[in-house]
Amino acid sequence: MSYFSFELDPALAADPVFDLHRNGKMAISSTVSLSSRDDLSLAYTPGVARVCEAIAEDPALYADYTWTANTVAVVTDGSAVLGLGNIGPKAAMPVMEGKSILFKQFGGVDSIPICLDTQDVEGIVAAVKAMAPSFGGINLEDISAPRCFEIERRLDAELDIPVFHDDQHGTAVVTLAALRNAATLLGRRFADLRVVISGAGAAGVAITQTLIAAGVEEANVIVCDSRGIIHRDREDLTAVKAELAATTNFSGRSGGIAEALIGADVLIGVSGGSIAESALAGMAPGGIIFALANPTPEVPPAIAHKYAAIVATGRSDFPNQINNVLAFPGIFRGALDCRASTITDAMKVAAADAIAEVVSDDLRAEAIVPSPLDPRVAPAVAKAVAEAAARDGVARRSVPGVTPDSIAQPDSIAQATTA
Amino acid sequence: MSYFSFELDPALAADPVFDLHRNGKMAISSTVSLSSRDDLSLAYTPGVARVCEAIAEDPALYADYTWTANTVAVVTDGSAVLGLGNIGPKAAMPVMEGKSILFKQFGGVDSIPICLDTQDVEGIVAAVKAMAPSFGGINLEDISAPRCFEIERRLDAELDIPVFHDDQHGTAVVTLAALRNAATLLGRRFADLRVVISGAGAAGVAITQTLIAAGVEEANVIVCDSRGIIHRDREDLTAVKAELAATTNFSGRSGGIAEALIGADVLIGVSGGSIAESALAGMAPGGIIFALANPTPEVPPAIAHKYAAIVATGRSDFPNQINNVLAFPGIFRGALDCRASTITDAMKVAAADAIAEVVSDDLRAEAIVPSPLDPRVAPAVAKAVAEAAARDGVARRSVPGVTPDSIAQPDSIAQATTA
Repeated sequence: MSYFSFELDPALAADPVFDLHRNGKMAISSTVSLSSRDDLSLAYTPGVARVCEAIAEDPALYADYTWTANTVAVVTDGSAVLGLGNIGPKAAMPVMEGKSILFKQFGGVDSIPICLDTQDVEGIVAAVKAMAPSFGGINLEDISAPRCFEIERRLDAELDIPVFHDDQHGTAVVTLAALRNAATLLGRRFADLRVVISGAGAAGVAITQTLIAAGVEEANVIVCDSRGIIHRDREDLTAVKAELAATTNFSGRSGGIAEALIGADVLIGVSGGSIAESALAGMAPGGIIFALANPTPEVPPAIAHKYAAIVATGRSDFPNQINNVLAFPGIFRGALDCRASTITDAMKVAAADAIAEVVSDDLRAEAIVPSPLDPRVAPAVAKAVAEAAARDGVARRSVPGVTPDSIAQPDSIAQATTA
Repeated sequence: MSYFSFELDPALAADPVFDLHRNGKMAISSTVSLSSRDDLSLAYTPGVARVCEAIAEDPALYADYTWTANTVAVVTDGSAVLGLGNIGPKAAMPVMEGKSILFKQFGGVDSIPICLDTQDVEGIVAAVKAMAPSFGGINLEDISAPRCFEIERRLDAELDIPVFHDDQHGTAVVTLAALRNAATLLGRRFADLRVVISGAGAAGVAITQTLIAAGVEEANVIVCDSRGIIHRDREDLTAVKAELAATTNFSGRSGGIAEALIGADVLIGVSGGSIAESALAGMAPGGIIFALANPTPEVPPAIAHKYAAIVATGRSDFPNQINNVLAFPGIFRGALDCRASTITDAMKVAAADAIAEVVSDDLRAEAIVPSPLDPRVAPAVAKAVAEAAARDGVARRSVPGVTPDSIAQPDSIAQATTA
């Protein structure tokens, strides 16, 4: 549209990656015609005034007569972008645009990238609360721990739309899906798995909580951070890690990752560090290793296969890619469809089970999760999430076939997750 | 995309206006392919990381490799929506969506409606500053006076992207364009026009400032608010009105609209009230009446024609519609194209002159401004605005044919405006 053209750095202009990202990766469009005076009079003044008045009179019409009910903000402060660290809001934008177009491509969700010029918890909470009427949901992205926990908790409590930190819950949902199928393949009871999680950042904390919500015994979970096993006697723990210490590692094991892994069935790496092969030797044989750090897994897949029957990574060039795109488009699709006010644990577990189910007929050690491009995934996740929302009483539209409990029943969560 | 459907209020569903606005009026789309694993690897991880790193290293690349350089937020707090008043952010959304799609349709600008859940000046300023890295410009919309003045002033001072309150400046630009052509048609010297502005809200204040910037003599301008003529001896004036009192009405006239209009060549109504026919009788014969209130002009056009040679309104069903859509798409198109850091008075005046020029070959009393659908307008405005930005030294890309003054020259503004 620009009426004159400008020169780009020639080296970048010739680079296929930069060429693809030139001028960004998304656009908006009108879904109504604007080619005549009558069109303008309907879509804008004076016609639009009647719609405004109707919403002012009955706020419930807001979701029916604006685009917000299908729109999710992808919000970051640029503090923990991919593996690049705190590169700030502007350098984070290409990732947020990418996330937004994945939302559209796989979930039909209109998504807007919002990069915030503040890394202060109060500033972020205030800004997101202020803009919240503009959206049907908030996807928090690439916000560093431990601030991400407080930001999500407060926004979820104070807003009546779903707030979802994908680095936590998207990763946790897909990990749970993969672990369900891995356990099935190995003929193991899910509740009995002895699980070690290496990494206590956003993903590690959420994976721990989600696996426990899905039925893994708290007593059988050990979480490690960069200083080793998290246990009750450590005095260097943040509030979130202190909570982990109180709800996992009942035997009070201490030491490093090698001590944690003794007798473990499952290793889930979300640390970004590397784990020595000698530490893996202590695992129970025939187990499971998910080494999810990107681009360099904590354990090279070839080494992992020496100590585990099933191996997954975060990379697209190995089998079993644990990719959040399997989760977030369908989760928000389902939450928006039923106008959920929040995303409950049961909705996350239902999403994981739906992802796992997609490949259940053809389960193999090299295919415990669907391909990120599998078109069956998002609709299945959306349906399961909406139904779980209705069961939990957080859906504001009725969902076919589901009789909502007016109050979420812990039992119904347990039933949904251990089925 | 929703996998189940829901019922709407049948009365609303059958109404063409509501049917048009159902699910809102806009959508986002990807401008890159996402159909293969390779696509995902380029547009998202791992490929995107290189673009993020490049921007982190050289922030100037931000505008080239994200969508932000073509993206404008339409921001409101819902405090002064159309003629509906303070209906709040949610009821304002249909208007903001409409504005956004007009931006796209006429200016090729990707625009996002942001409805804020605060009407506090500090809250609005903080929220917009926080989200500002996400956009290439901020269009403030339907924010009530006098808060709108402080909000715009502070955001413009604190942000390095254009901030433009359309209810002020969009209206002022199109009014100036119409007045230029009306004066030409009537063979009147622009600087000599005696102008009365009825209304001292957002539009009235901006029209006053813009007409003076464009060459109307301060001494010849009188502004009225709901209590009558604004003059130096009034003690009930807000800060903005006190400034008006100091810079207009040099003769210190007092009284009501009838006293103001005695001998006036031009009446510009932006008050929303009505003006008695008896008051019009005092105007100099053969003048100009712009009665811009919507949907009910301050003076019915049939009455206005009895006292003026040229009449304009804000309505599409009378000749000479003063419609902001003639201004804002081209103004932001031009500002974004040259990456202006702000929108100067000279850019506004240049926009008005470009609008006026489009119909200069076929100037008639019933066609002093182009049709809102005239495709020549936005490109002409964009070019003029970008060139004026370059002259004023606020363009961050060079504009063909313009040698920028490093500092804006008041003379160059005067030249541009009195030509």
